[in-house]
Amino acid sequence: VVSDVPILGPGREFDAIRALVAAWGTAAQGIGDDAAALDVPPGERLVVSTDTSVENVHFRREWLTPAEIGWRATMAALSDLAAMGARPLGVLSAITVPVSWQGALGDIGDGIGEAVNAANTKIIGGDLSAGGELSITVTVLGSASHALTRSDARPGDSLYVSGALGGPALALRSWLAGEAPNAAARQRFAMPHARLAFGCGLSALGCTSAIDVSDGLIADARHLAAASNVMITIDLDAIPRFPGASAADAASSGEEYELLVTAPSLTLRDFTCIGTVGAPGEKPGVIVMSGGARVEFAGGYDHFSP
Amino acid sequence: VVSDVPILGPGREFDAIRALVAAWGTAAQGIGDDAAALDVPPGERLVVSTDTSVENVHFRREWLTPAEIGWRATMAALSDLAAMGARPLGVLSAITVPVSWQGALGDIGDGIGEAVNAANTKIIGGDLSAGGELSITVTVLGSASHALTRSDARPGDSLYVSGALGGPALALRSWLAGEAPNAAARQRFAMPHARLAFGCGLSALGCTSAIDVSDGLIADARHLAAASNVMITIDLDAIPRFPGASAADAASSGEEYELLVTAPSLTLRDFTCIGTVGAPGEKPGVIVMSGGARVEFAGGYDHFSP
Repeated sequence: VVSDVPILGPGREFDAIRALVAAWGTAAQGIGDDAAALDVPPGERLVVSTDTSVENVHFRREWLTPAEIGWRATMAALSDLAAMGARPLGVLSAITVPVSWQGALGDIGDGIGEAVNAANTKIIGGDLSAGGELSITVTVLGSASHALTRSDARPGDSLYVSGALGGPALALRSWLAGEAPNAAARQRFAMPHARLAFGCGLSALGCTSAIDVSDGLIADARHLAAASNVMITIDLDAIPRFPGASAADAASSGEEYELLVTAPSLTLRDFTCIGTVGAPGEKPGVIVMSGGARVEFAGGYDHFSP
Repeated sequence: VVSDVPILGPGREFDAIRALVAAWGTAAQGIGDDAAALDVPPGERLVVSTDTSVENVHFRREWLTPAEIGWRATMAALSDLAAMGARPLGVLSAITVPVSWQGALGDIGDGIGEAVNAANTKIIGGDLSAGGELSITVTVLGSASHALTRSDARPGDSLYVSGALGGPALALRSWLAGEAPNAAARQRFAMPHARLAFGCGLSALGCTSAIDVSDGLIADARHLAAASNVMITIDLDAIPRFPGASAADAASSGEEYELLVTAPSLTLRDFTCIGTVGAPGEKPGVIVMSGGARVEFAGGYDHFSP
């Protein structure tokens, strides 16, 4: 689509942008101005989030193909729309490309384009910069007639999670041990799928709050509990596990991009009840139970830990 | 505003986010969920852009204070809204913070907050990540009843630029020569002001197209010419110069964040007529004149140049 190829003056930076947009084809739309202009459906609110993926922080070069890096960064950002019950309107990708990655930029772009197509949305803008480390900041725009937040879980609700957890943790453990992960676990880390199809319907199904599992199920449940001022009790043994994952793996594995939701009751394929919401005691938080007894649980990823 | 402090679970990363948002006070709004939800004024289009500032690419640590780095990254992004004739609705800032910068994060945040206040908008979200180099990706959201693009300049229009150009180039030249720039030139580089007040009114004043001066006046005029399929003739001698700047400085200085606009006629304080728009010849482009003769002009910044 010629009109979607950005009309820019000369220069190698602009050549790189032109090449990306040409490869994206119909996955890109209206790129080439100072900003993108788009319409939010009447009666809906705009929902927007931004998410950064940095080499050696969120992934290592030897773990993933360039296309997987682009896909994963995009899906990680889209997952925040799913957690808000929003439909995507468009994606902006700001890519910082070191010299050693310039040859891989086309493949990274392909991965971004494939993720955007899979989410049935468009790339509407971005930025391309030089830099010392590969970094992709994806901003996602969506809309919802009723945005699901973290703060409306109610005592008496149950807690549900989508999918089976622990795959990314298994893949990470293998890589960090210098081994190749098994293909299925690797796929869960490399090519996550934002739960957009579920997200848009959750509000209509009576869900009261939602968050996506990015820091780890228990860590994210703590965010829900804090935001909703409730005590959440989770049955460790009820968490669906990815084949080969332990209960602790499933409870702490990050970057799952599954959805953790509260509802008075929810019957939906792929969602499992794993806990209950009660009134807060002294302070809101998460109680983890296993075999009928309370267990201590530490875990989840913290970017600023030593 | 207690309800605007993000309610997050425990962890040092979340402590850092909480500290930023607490310091922002009323400059931040609704942070703490997976995404921000906001309303676009009825009858207006959403306008959105993203812009990355990377240490050692867009600035050096020894040139700027942390607060100036935050201010500049934010104003650079907001300038794209001005160029679209849009009013800001909110800002998201994704910050990648190396260990050596963690102590400066509060000051960077202060600069972001001051820029957001100066633009009369709010910080509505962001991301905080570890990494090897300081990087700030600011996404700006705005709205406009009629968005100004680069592609509607018409033969017969005149070309206008705001302000006086060349200050950032002077500051850069001093720094690169190992000298301290004069205070006024340094201020133009360190603390730019997006031309938001002008931007919102330009469409009503009959402007046909606009771009902000980020790559350099001539380079940005080439983008306008290419997008609008016109030939733009610029009188190098007519470009208003920052004190001490040469005509070539004024024509090539990047990151000015002034506005370059076309209109049949424009009388507006701080805008100077510097050229004309004609039909394209063989191909659209920019002709630079000086002393009545055509001059060759190369310049502007290219991230991907060797």
